[in-house]
Amino acid sequence: MNREYNAVTNEIKEQIKSSVEGKVYVGNEINEDFFHDEMPIYGEGIPDVVVRPKNANDVANVVRICYQNNLPIVPRGAGTGLTGAGVAIKGGVMIDLKSMNQILEYDDDNFVVRVQPGVYLNDLAQDALSRGYMYPPDPGEKFATIGGNVSTNAGGMRAVKYGTTRNYVKEMEVVLPTGEITRFGANVAKTSTGYSLINLMIGSEGTLGIITELTLKLITAPKETVSLVIPYENLDDCISTVPKLFRSNLNPQAIEFMEREIVLTSERFIGKSTFPKELEGIEIGAYLLVTFDGENRDMLDDIVEKAAEVVIEAGAIDVLVADTPAKIKDAWAARSSFLEAIEAETELLDECDVVVPINKIAKYINFVNKEGENYDFSVKSFGHAGDGNLHIYACSNSMEKDEFMRQVHEFMTVIYQKAYEMGGQISGEHGIGYGKKEYLKQFEGELNVNLMREIKKAFDPKFILNPNKII
Amino acid sequence: MNREYNAVTNEIKEQIKSSVEGKVYVGNEINEDFFHDEMPIYGEGIPDVVVRPKNANDVANVVRICYQNNLPIVPRGAGTGLTGAGVAIKGGVMIDLKSMNQILEYDDDNFVVRVQPGVYLNDLAQDALSRGYMYPPDPGEKFATIGGNVSTNAGGMRAVKYGTTRNYVKEMEVVLPTGEITRFGANVAKTSTGYSLINLMIGSEGTLGIITELTLKLITAPKETVSLVIPYENLDDCISTVPKLFRSNLNPQAIEFMEREIVLTSERFIGKSTFPKELEGIEIGAYLLVTFDGENRDMLDDIVEKAAEVVIEAGAIDVLVADTPAKIKDAWAARSSFLEAIEAETELLDECDVVVPINKIAKYINFVNKEGENYDFSVKSFGHAGDGNLHIYACSNSMEKDEFMRQVHEFMTVIYQKAYEMGGQISGEHGIGYGKKEYLKQFEGELNVNLMREIKKAFDPKFILNPNKII
Repeated sequence: MNREYNAVTNEIKEQIKSSVEGKVYVGNEINEDFFHDEMPIYGEGIPDVVVRPKNANDVANVVRICYQNNLPIVPRGAGTGLTGAGVAIKGGVMIDLKSMNQILEYDDDNFVVRVQPGVYLNDLAQDALSRGYMYPPDPGEKFATIGGNVSTNAGGMRAVKYGTTRNYVKEMEVVLPTGEITRFGANVAKTSTGYSLINLMIGSEGTLGIITELTLKLITAPKETVSLVIPYENLDDCISTVPKLFRSNLNPQAIEFMEREIVLTSERFIGKSTFPKELEGIEIGAYLLVTFDGENRDMLDDIVEKAAEVVIEAGAIDVLVADTPAKIKDAWAARSSFLEAIEAETELLDECDVVVPINKIAKYINFVNKEGENYDFSVKSFGHAGDGNLHIYACSNSMEKDEFMRQVHEFMTVIYQKAYEMGGQISGEHGIGYGKKEYLKQFEGELNVNLMREIKKAFDPKFILNPNKII
Repeated sequence: MNREYNAVTNEIKEQIKSSVEGKVYVGNEINEDFFHDEMPIYGEGIPDVVVRPKNANDVANVVRICYQNNLPIVPRGAGTGLTGAGVAIKGGVMIDLKSMNQILEYDDDNFVVRVQPGVYLNDLAQDALSRGYMYPPDPGEKFATIGGNVSTNAGGMRAVKYGTTRNYVKEMEVVLPTGEITRFGANVAKTSTGYSLINLMIGSEGTLGIITELTLKLITAPKETVSLVIPYENLDDCISTVPKLFRSNLNPQAIEFMEREIVLTSERFIGKSTFPKELEGIEIGAYLLVTFDGENRDMLDDIVEKAAEVVIEAGAIDVLVADTPAKIKDAWAARSSFLEAIEAETELLDECDVVVPINKIAKYINFVNKEGENYDFSVKSFGHAGDGNLHIYACSNSMEKDEFMRQVHEFMTVIYQKAYEMGGQISGEHGIGYGKKEYLKQFEGELNVNLMREIKKAFDPKFILNPNKII
């Protein structure tokens, strides 16, 4: 859908400046970081104005001006997205919500916290922990904003046990694309009060409204955790362990898998060896990294003992136990650096975060690796074995950009097709944004995408909010 | 919104009959049970045609005929709803989905089951258990259909630990109001693939599409359970225990509260005494009924010991442990019969299932009891202390129906108002249906209800599917 918007005149810039308590930047005052997100291959967009609002009224005032003047608006968190969702493709007004970064109030009786959308995940997690709470969602990027996490329904490492961001959002304040302020949801444990507008907002990537406040569910922080590094000869053995772990009711917090190649890439980046590469004369081809949490050490010792039985029975070569904070940090060091490690040694990069049923992971990755041999780029992958969400990277240091993009498009089309044949979907946690919307139409189908477009129209009749994203 | 629909002519009845493999009933062939649900005070509706479809194609064929001829359609499960959502207020064609009641397939690697929408909750729960699985949602009415549970986002006893039906729906096949068949969601553990159409369908009470197949998440059944009956002198002490139980990380499956009066009503109905009424010379005013589950008896013994400390510290008079299936059944006998017990001794009945933050329950119930004294009916209440969802009944055996309804409307308006002041919402699990829609507009606001109406229009441009429900 390609709509025409008006230009942001100097008069409108002045009108915006005089309507907000926060700061407004125009022209050369705007930092180039705002022109793209973490996946610049999807193109740049230069906003005419960047507003750093102080409060919901600032946001509403700016949106109203844009609504009256038919100007595009792009809400933006920390710009750590991987799909171009937070980029001003059509120019216009960018609203930088990092300026609204207060943790407002803990409600200790109802186990919730009220926050502004620009709080960093890292800050919320740390602050909650200092009060004995855990905010369970744990996406890899700790310096994303909570508003961005909600807008993509971010998942992360602990989704296996605790679910995704969706499961922790109870209430939100929203500025609609008309400039009206409303609230969705409530500080209650369950609800069946009309259509779930809050669930529609979650994962809508800033296209239906701008979140200006969130009430999030917390849990009491588990007292102890333990991580296991489990080496296997090959990926099939490694992945076949996962349903067995679930069936034994050990309730892991996280189950990540990684192939030998990506571990080597990451170890080069962090400059140290983390995992064994050969054991009992067998070259290690794949690893599981599993974390359990619990109330006390005895309970975890029991779990580790049972888990060890299950994984050895399933073909693991060994089980390495990390049971102190320092050892756990080491065990996760390679995994935590995968994306940075790939970025550091790659000029041209694209990725997908396809999700498939968990019992299809090995078959799917084997397919992807084989398919990757047909292209001039190299393919690296890792992912969440506990929830079937796979991060697959196409990397090149030698190709022309146009040719890289042509080949990547072909590769992505083939691997998305395979994911859908296996019952999967395009994205587990990164979203659709600007980069994946043609694939959304192709694989979710015109009928579903038309419903999404009509829903978009219901919220945003002029299509001014984050245009050309998702649909 | 009051729209005009066409009449169902004999010609259309014949057209419907010849377009489906299932059965079609017209006129006197239609059982009067289809004229209302379990809350007949919201009025009757007589369908012109009842279709018992065999499959999704039957449903799609009938919907297409209704779409072409501008006829109202009402999808219906077991008719156990409490808001009039499944009643043919405008006549037209009712689709009785109890005829699609097959459990289609268990997927033991991904822990899901694929079912038709007309399967009874009871049948799914039993069948899953026979295979070592638990389907966690546990609404009081076991002979509701799964499709109905999804359409109201039914909650039930175990929502405290396991969440509501929403958390267990992974994929659905839907017939849209245009007669097109589509699928929402996928058999994956997480997704961020465009707007969450599946979450919009959940809780939409048959107004956006007709569910013809569901893929539901299962968990490994816990091996042991134990229930505690905990008597208190008064409701305040009783309710103040709840956050303390959460804070101690004992992870209860269910926490129900009940006042003395409702226990007496229920015991009259089932014909036996279940709970102590006086202990240590203190008259018992309220009870908590708590269930824990776990992997083995030792683990549960530990939990019971810690829970007993917490509740006695919080003011409980005693702790009665039910640790065998027979004792657990007895402990839950009174609670399980509340609705039937009230129905059995009441001529005129209305109810609400308001939800409030858990730390407001006692204050709210005290308000409701006091407010109830201003009316000619009596007020009985019970509810889910672990999630703040309260079932409040207005009961009369002596009032004229019109006067009862006038007074109930006044009472409900006052208590909904109070719930919203405390941060609550209209319904925790029953939905809005026909009976609560004026309250939805009043308390959720025109702005949010207008968004819902535009969403309705996106799915159902002719407003033929379950008209006059929710909005």
